[in-house]
Amino acid sequence: MWSHIVCVSVLLHYVTGQSGTTLNIKDVFEGRCYDYKETLYNGLLPEVKASCGDLWLKFLDAFAYKHPCDVKFESYSAYWEAAKQILPTDKVMFWSGVYNLAHRFANNGKRYVTLEDTLIGYLANSLTWCGTQKQPGLNFTRCPSWTDCPTEASESFWAGASKTFASEAKGVVTLMLDGSNPKQPAYRRNSFFAKYELPSLNPKLVTSVKVIVTHALNAPKVEFCGTGSLVDLKNDVTKAGLKYTCTDDPIAVMHLLCADDPESRECQLTFAHAQGELTRKKRSEDFNGMPDFF
Amino acid sequence: MWSHIVCVSVLLHYVTGQSGTTLNIKDVFEGRCYDYKETLYNGLLPEVKASCGDLWLKFLDAFAYKHPCDVKFESYSAYWEAAKQILPTDKVMFWSGVYNLAHRFANNGKRYVTLEDTLIGYLANSLTWCGTQKQPGLNFTRCPSWTDCPTEASESFWAGASKTFASEAKGVVTLMLDGSNPKQPAYRRNSFFAKYELPSLNPKLVTSVKVIVTHALNAPKVEFCGTGSLVDLKNDVTKAGLKYTCTDDPIAVMHLLCADDPESRECQLTFAHAQGELTRKKRSEDFNGMPDFF
Repeated sequence: MWSHIVCVSVLLHYVTGQSGTTLNIKDVFEGRCYDYKETLYNGLLPEVKASCGDLWLKFLDAFAYKHPCDVKFESYSAYWEAAKQILPTDKVMFWSGVYNLAHRFANNGKRYVTLEDTLIGYLANSLTWCGTQKQPGLNFTRCPSWTDCPTEASESFWAGASKTFASEAKGVVTLMLDGSNPKQPAYRRNSFFAKYELPSLNPKLVTSVKVIVTHALNAPKVEFCGTGSLVDLKNDVTKAGLKYTCTDDPIAVMHLLCADDPESRECQLTFAHAQGELTRKKRSEDFNGMPDFF
Repeated sequence: MWSHIVCVSVLLHYVTGQSGTTLNIKDVFEGRCYDYKETLYNGLLPEVKASCGDLWLKFLDAFAYKHPCDVKFESYSAYWEAAKQILPTDKVMFWSGVYNLAHRFANNGKRYVTLEDTLIGYLANSLTWCGTQKQPGLNFTRCPSWTDCPTEASESFWAGASKTFASEAKGVVTLMLDGSNPKQPAYRRNSFFAKYELPSLNPKLVTSVKVIVTHALNAPKVEFCGTGSLVDLKNDVTKAGLKYTCTDDPIAVMHLLCADDPESRECQLTFAHAQGELTRKKRSEDFNGMPDFF
């Protein structure tokens, strides 16, 4: 989940046009909380009792009026405790390096539940924040990059969020990885999954880890199930007392990728004869075949 | 877009468990606004200058302290004016009867921009609201159903929102319809598209209407391009001075549908040989083919 953090950080530079705490962060945070409580994920994830104002204060308390590199892992404990939810069996999904695809596949909790679907992650997703010892306690001008602070302070929020999330998982959990990044292996032992999520899975509650290795269209395929870093992953999962399964490019994920680029050579090859079949099938059903053009 | 309204209404019964104004509506509305301004759609849709507090007051003013059936079309004018955005050329999408599919295809403004992606629609989407002449001016117990009030009051918000949205469209606009609903035709002259959107398109700015007719998997296919109500649609679009194109089940949309149900007979037929091709292709690339299972 390093890529998560990198992704969030890069996104924020783009989104806010500055690198300090997100403007109006209290209003954004509390507003998301009200939206979550009243309209989002109802029926999919349980309601949290804590008020939105209370959640904001517990979150804020972890870093406000502190030096940005002086935020310990435990600083957010009161927030995790107040915001955590019971998670549905067999639906927890972890991901690394494939933020967009994993979230589109998860489909807002309908297929899978990611950390960013839970209240803990939803409220903070894509935000930047850091404290200052001066008034008003938040630095809206500049936050240190993740590499400027010691590891613990950099990772404290998302590491703790990941641990809390993983510790609530039950049944089969899913992990989506990128097998086509030439710059880093699909699985890394310094990833959030390896450092915080896998060790937090409870072998009495979790039965197996179902790994999905995806490959971007039209890009070199670097690793597959059973090769390279995925051998390490299998070993680590097995050592943790969990069953391990792995699949490359399940067809449902290929459909999602190909929805964005159906004309690509790879989609044409993968879904051979698709258009021909479709046209033939439709023609036979179209009793009043007036031709239209697209 | 009747189905839009029906869908929102049904959703709300489910979501809020009551049929009065959404609880904490001010906080949800303003919170969404802050989230929208600070983190959502940046780079895709322009920022709106009005403050979130101001937008809420303009919205509230349209119905607070009024009988719920006494809300005229123009009541929301100040809100439309303050919240409307310039829309990107060739990206506007209308839809009817296919809320989920249309929005997944639109992909939060990345492929298409729907009314619900714009600030006007985003702030109100899935909420229920109505006024009362008594304190506190909003009825949190019960709002009339859409059929309890005269048409104008029922439709006033979403009709005006749709008109405002359509009037800002430029280039090619897209309309996604459901060709597999046995209870209603794909195109109806009492639909929101026919009543409010098509008449609001500016033929000096909009060049053509690209219709996408979709069919649910494993359901009877009721209408296709060039048949039934789609003949009326072609006539109405042409009369409005716009070019008309129509396509049934474009392959990109089929991919999205099949991502949810890849094993269905129809997906197997449409994307013939998919898994065989994929397996063959992967095996040839997988230099270290240790078998894994999924």
